[in-house]
Amino acid sequence: MSGVATPVIILNTKAYQESMGEKGLALAKACEEVTKETGVSTVICPQQFDLAWIAHQVSIPCFAQHVDAKDVGSATGWALPESAKAAGAAGSLINHSEHRLTMADIDTLVTRCRALGLTSVVCTNNIQVSAAAASLNPDMIAIEPPELIGTGIPVSRADPDIVRGSVEQVSAINRNVVVLCGAGISTGEDVRAAIELGAKGVLLASGVVKADSPKAALLDLVSGI
Amino acid sequence: MSGVATPVIILNTKAYQESMGEKGLALAKACEEVTKETGVSTVICPQQFDLAWIAHQVSIPCFAQHVDAKDVGSATGWALPESAKAAGAAGSLINHSEHRLTMADIDTLVTRCRALGLTSVVCTNNIQVSAAAASLNPDMIAIEPPELIGTGIPVSRADPDIVRGSVEQVSAINRNVVVLCGAGISTGEDVRAAIELGAKGVLLASGVVKADSPKAALLDLVSGI
Amino acid sequence: MSGVATPVIILNTKAYQESMGEKGLALAKACEEVTKETGVSTVICPQQFDLAWIAHQVSIPCFAQHVDAKDVGSATGWALPESAKAAGAAGSLINHSEHRLTMADIDTLVTRCRALGLTSVVCTNNIQVSAAAASLNPDMIAIEPPELIGTGIPVSRADPDIVRGSVEQVSAINRNVVVLCGAGISTGEDVRAAIELGAKGVLLASGVVKADSPKAALLDLVSGI
Amino acid sequence: MSGVATPVIILNTKAYQESMGEKGLALAKACEEVTKETGVSTVICPQQFDLAWIAHQVSIPCFAQHVDAKDVGSATGWALPESAKAAGAAGSLINHSEHRLTMADIDTLVTRCRALGLTSVVCTNNIQVSAAAASLNPDMIAIEPPELIGTGIPVSRADPDIVRGSVEQVSAINRNVVVLCGAGISTGEDVRAAIELGAKGVLLASGVVKADSPKAALLDLVSGI
Repeated sequence: MSGVATPVIILNTKAYQESMGEKGLALAKACEEVTKETGVSTVICPQQFDLAWIAHQVSIPCFAQHVDAKDVGSATGWALPESAKAAGAAGSLINHSEHRLTMADIDTLVTRCRALGLTSVVCTNNIQVSAAAASLNPDMIAIEPPELIGTGIPVSRADPDIVRGSVEQVSAINRNVVVLCGAGISTGEDVRAAIELGAKGVLLASGVVKADSPKAALLDLVSGI
Repeated sequence: MSGVATPVIILNTKAYQESMGEKGLALAKACEEVTKETGVSTVICPQQFDLAWIAHQVSIPCFAQHVDAKDVGSATGWALPESAKAAGAAGSLINHSEHRLTMADIDTLVTRCRALGLTSVVCTNNIQVSAAAASLNPDMIAIEPPELIGTGIPVSRADPDIVRGSVEQVSAINRNVVVLCGAGISTGEDVRAAIELGAKGVLLASGVVKADSPKAALLDLVSGI
Repeated sequence: MSGVATPVIILNTKAYQESMGEKGLALAKACEEVTKETGVSTVICPQQFDLAWIAHQVSIPCFAQHVDAKDVGSATGWALPESAKAAGAAGSLINHSEHRLTMADIDTLVTRCRALGLTSVVCTNNIQVSAAAASLNPDMIAIEPPELIGTGIPVSRADPDIVRGSVEQVSAINRNVVVLCGAGISTGEDVRAAIELGAKGVLLASGVVKADSPKAALLDLVSGI
Repeated sequence: MSGVATPVIILNTKAYQESMGEKGLALAKACEEVTKETGVSTVICPQQFDLAWIAHQVSIPCFAQHVDAKDVGSATGWALPESAKAAGAAGSLINHSEHRLTMADIDTLVTRCRALGLTSVVCTNNIQVSAAAASLNPDMIAIEPPELIGTGIPVSRADPDIVRGSVEQVSAINRNVVVLCGAGISTGEDVRAAIELGAKGVLLASGVVKADSPKAALLDLVSGI
């Protein structure tokens, strides 16, 4: 249902020092090069202030890191799906563990993203929440146990059942939803393990953003596909 | 203390349909033209996703509409002062009535903005809150009675005492802070009245963003200075 | 799975003037009398500050209006499931439309309530959110279209499909979950219609709290069962 | 301006296991006994659900731990000043570091508390925020550096300048405001030091709540006055 090819590697650049301004643009360019060289689908989530600026300069899809469910209009400083679309975004993360949303707002945002042609990726923290998210009909669900985020311990090894279980339960409720996994992913081996567990891609951040060579880290990741 | 010349007209483009993407860039260009033609200081607050993109294309100061007090790092989808700086911003609105912050976070953000060389504009809703904000030592305070925002009824006429009182009390507590006013401002006459009450400029949104000709609206506004 | 008998009438007393202090106790006593006289199950949700005080004085189940997912300990002013249990509560509303929670917190709270023997009632706003909530395995789901709350226009008449659809979808995902409905319910006829649509009870507020005679209003409601 | 005698010891029972239900009542009774035996003013802040229940059973003032700025009416699960008053409270903490509020809401709550005859205690985290709070005209300000809360390292020893500076700046802005201090206070010596720095009392929690004998801990504290 999503316009993004799978398997996919989604790079969330968060609000790291290493992804601000020109450094964020360099990360987006690295993703673009890797996609051009390998044919593997990558997506970049720039820092919020950089979205339009980066989206105008790369050919890969750019996703917002977060969108808010405020109405278009008097919503000073809020990040709307409609604004993301106008900025050149192709989709958005929704409900990342560092930026949780109410269940009603997740539902509203998935619907608004669909109407705008934006790919929606709802982040979840365990199997039953993944199952719940499936009923809201997003394009993708990214299961990320918060306790593993940023640890370098890949979810695909530390807790394979949470990936397998999410894939099964999401599929039982809504076959249209693609399941990704995240948290601790940093190598091609991690990606391969995730895909063997049924995931259609990965969502990651520090493993690439803080790598000495982000491009080399990305090339290693795509080698797992 | 701020790097922005006063009197100043600050245009908050909010999350209006009329300020997304290319339309937001056109609004920034209109401000730039007016400043070039008249010498009056203007500031544009683009939609959050457009900040870097617009800041790279205009010579007038660009302010973030809002910043969050999260730490640099794992802060997915949050808008940090450091990220605004890297995006090319010269300052930020803080605590707009549509995006309130805790008192502790306002304090933190003013301090972080100062360290980054970003001009801080703390929005307030009445005289005692303006006085409170003065103790937090921002560069500017913008008094905006929420009930007048978007009405076209200028605060300078509907409630002149709130402007005069804010100027007096802020000055008594902290002489370094510049006071602006907002809410319902749309004409040069409104601006003149604000300045006669002691304000050093205005913060406005719909009066320009939704005007048939934003540039004509801006020219009318600067005529009041 | 819940310890509350169905069909049930749950009275949410919100933060009305008419339900504070002694008036809230009188509402609880009215529910207790109606249950004693008619045998129909009623539940009272007192104002938060009154929970223990009222729970010590009536024999019907008292539910918290809301609980927060903070950890036991340094959580000043937050309302924890463990505290509700110690106060004598038999359950809690979770995610009322006037007090939304994140999906992750709803999940956590349902789990904590179950461990404490508290009946969990997750409020939802449409069919797909009801389906999502079913995966989180609460004891009960109360479907309440926010636009009808407080109107006196009963959801069972204004939007019967939302009740029927919620019952069907919740049942398809999790047979253990009881479905209630709310919003605009004020008469026995409304209750009867709700039950004919598959609901096992109702959640209501102003129709009783603001009635000239709350007991008469309750007696009318139970006549629909 | 407040109805509470100073010097005062305010016991915030937070959401500890040791302060739920009957244990919370016992803490309130211990405060009451200490006040009766020593004549020193004490205030208890019960867990939110226990406020009315405890307020009906002790003669010392009971304060809410937190109040919300929602309007009376449809505010499910929110804790209103008006509800606290009806529950028998004599005041409320406002803006505790574990439950921050926006500056506009602090202003609103102080005003509503005053109109209800409730003593308002606004918590602050540093000198400039104390100064800011003074402009909002609460009855009391409690300066509590968050990094010392729960450590047992008393603010009066670890950071005497923050207490002295808050007393000075608050007094310069608003002579009617009483300054308390908190964080790490657990002995009579800590209380004496706080009072020597200009505070009119202390706000504390774990030092008493988690003591083997809360009454003995309280008696030690009052010995510092």
